[in-house]
Amino acid sequence: MRHLHTHIKRIRPLDQMAMGLASIRQSQLAKPPASMGMLEDLAVQMAGISGKVENRIQQRRVIVLCADHGVTAEGISMAPRSVTAAQAVNMTRGGTGMSALARHFGAEVQVVDVGIASEYSCPEILNRRIMRGTHNFAVQPAMTRESAVEAILTGIELAELARDDGMDIIGVGEMGIGNSTSASAVLAALTRTPADLVLGCSREVSGAALSKRERTIRRALERCRLDPNDPIDILAKVGGLDLAAMCGVYLGAAEHRLPVVIDGFVSAVAALCAARLCPTAVKYMFPSHAAEEPGYHVAAEQLGIDPCLDLHMRLGEGAGCVLAFEIIAAACAAMCGMATFEEASIDDSYLDDVREDSRFVYSLEA
Amino acid sequence: MRHLHTHIKRIRPLDQMAMGLASIRQSQLAKPPASMGMLEDLAVQMAGISGKVENRIQQRRVIVLCADHGVTAEGISMAPRSVTAAQAVNMTRGGTGMSALARHFGAEVQVVDVGIASEYSCPEILNRRIMRGTHNFAVQPAMTRESAVEAILTGIELAELARDDGMDIIGVGEMGIGNSTSASAVLAALTRTPADLVLGCSREVSGAALSKRERTIRRALERCRLDPNDPIDILAKVGGLDLAAMCGVYLGAAEHRLPVVIDGFVSAVAALCAARLCPTAVKYMFPSHAAEEPGYHVAAEQLGIDPCLDLHMRLGEGAGCVLAFEIIAAACAAMCGMATFEEASIDDSYLDDVREDSRFVYSLEA
Repeated sequence: MRHLHTHIKRIRPLDQMAMGLASIRQSQLAKPPASMGMLEDLAVQMAGISGKVENRIQQRRVIVLCADHGVTAEGISMAPRSVTAAQAVNMTRGGTGMSALARHFGAEVQVVDVGIASEYSCPEILNRRIMRGTHNFAVQPAMTRESAVEAILTGIELAELARDDGMDIIGVGEMGIGNSTSASAVLAALTRTPADLVLGCSREVSGAALSKRERTIRRALERCRLDPNDPIDILAKVGGLDLAAMCGVYLGAAEHRLPVVIDGFVSAVAALCAARLCPTAVKYMFPSHAAEEPGYHVAAEQLGIDPCLDLHMRLGEGAGCVLAFEIIAAACAAMCGMATFEEASIDDSYLDDVREDSRFVYSLEA
Repeated sequence: MRHLHTHIKRIRPLDQMAMGLASIRQSQLAKPPASMGMLEDLAVQMAGISGKVENRIQQRRVIVLCADHGVTAEGISMAPRSVTAAQAVNMTRGGTGMSALARHFGAEVQVVDVGIASEYSCPEILNRRIMRGTHNFAVQPAMTRESAVEAILTGIELAELARDDGMDIIGVGEMGIGNSTSASAVLAALTRTPADLVLGCSREVSGAALSKRERTIRRALERCRLDPNDPIDILAKVGGLDLAAMCGVYLGAAEHRLPVVIDGFVSAVAALCAARLCPTAVKYMFPSHAAEEPGYHVAAEQLGIDPCLDLHMRLGEGAGCVLAFEIIAAACAAMCGMATFEEASIDDSYLDDVREDSRFVYSLEA
């Protein structure tokens, strides 16, 4: 625990000077003020993270945390747990949705086993297994507090590795049958929202199966009496090894000033855990897509993020991150590549009044 | 006119067989059914356009129609009309927002003068000038019906050129000071929506300037008594050369079975004109971003489109198209590149019941 707090204490606010200079540059570019909307904000946030006004995003990596969930013993998932290992392997070969997208764009995929239950043989999967899946949180804590901290530290280590490998940006994905039930339980506990409002829906789980999920979560939360201000305890009691490690990746990214992209529902819940441990960590996060699950929107609102993609996806894996990498890279390229009014030989004095009002619209609080 | 109708009559429905086969392929891929949301729909639509299940999008072009608007004489725009020519030139050099994005992604930019008023010297701009800007629609028709048809035919020719140049997809952008006022007038006339509800807002036009726009449009519409079922007359009386040519690009794209991406407000209004001339043309269109202007949403609803990007942009130029090209290309790459359940050695019989319900969820009407 002391070790974890050392990492968290190293997380610093964004660079206000770089953000201010980036905002001024945006106001000088040949376009109506703020007309590029979120693309301008993304480039300014990147400046705050890197400390440089101009940034190029080339090396991109999706870190996929894979783990099994004991709660599948309750029959809350349609897919058998063997699918976790099968899809983790499939991912290393570019055969899943996210990894096919990553191959298309030339982004790296790092598949990490933090708790897969089934046997498999695949040397491309990084072995950081803490346990062979969690316990069934319907009847006992998913893991000990020590295991949850170990998983968080594993995630922090993965972010550090990404920094050492020269990544310009990372994304946080997952693969784990049952993890949307665990994520729903964590979100309900963190936000004191009734389980039925945060439940990750999916087309293959509805009716009786969905009420079983809801009942399982509600009973576990009644039994555990969790403190919304103790995300580590929540992760240990009703979370998962993937969720805890993902939370660590967000913290490690903030510690190492590495921009980090949130994917869908499970990824957003892990981001909220990180935010509760260190609110400043959110400044290093970029949302990607508005996931289809209702719980995503609960988490996004708490994080104060506004996703730029709306694709009605609920795949997980980090698929949204791969697409958002391109938008963020483009936002930075536009700010670097556009001409100023002066360079375009346009007399922009007609904008003087507007500038007076809007020059400092960018919120510069850290 | 007869010539225009010959083009329109050549527009055929999408290929139902290719779409059906693409939908079946989507259901066999290693993912929960429909979990990739709109990415699945985009790939299926592409199959319907090309007639092939698998598609690769490599050659991408934004066609930017540039023209001046006589209505700027009413003082409804802050920027002087000279900015149209200056930004058209800047665009050929990669200095505008859209063209900086296009350079980043390696998309082509074709800048076309269909009615720029100012003198400029730039051989990279394709000269298809019909008039040196429209007349002021506040006092007289913007152009004759013949000029409007000529502009539409010019757009059709540009789509044909894109097909001949081997483009896999095109986008429709614009540059023209005053064109959001013209687009608002066209949209109000097409949909019989009050001018204040369709007005393209922009940060630099508000208060008195905005009410002047609204008054100008309202009076012109009262004077012209336009028929919502005659988009050509509407384009001639209160539209613009850019809008009419853009409408033509959409029609030409559908004629030549070329996928075409809508950008923001002005681009969507031109798409709606094309849709009124030939409803089937909409099947060849892809939305890109939800533009900030309220009128965009009026046009999008009429077109029945659901944009996948939400960036709070109001730049125009075709900037959203450049980003959407990447999403659509990725959607096709994912469908081509993913493993099936069988290839991933996953027994997917647990999905049999779901499949029974959802195999034909894709709407196959043309």
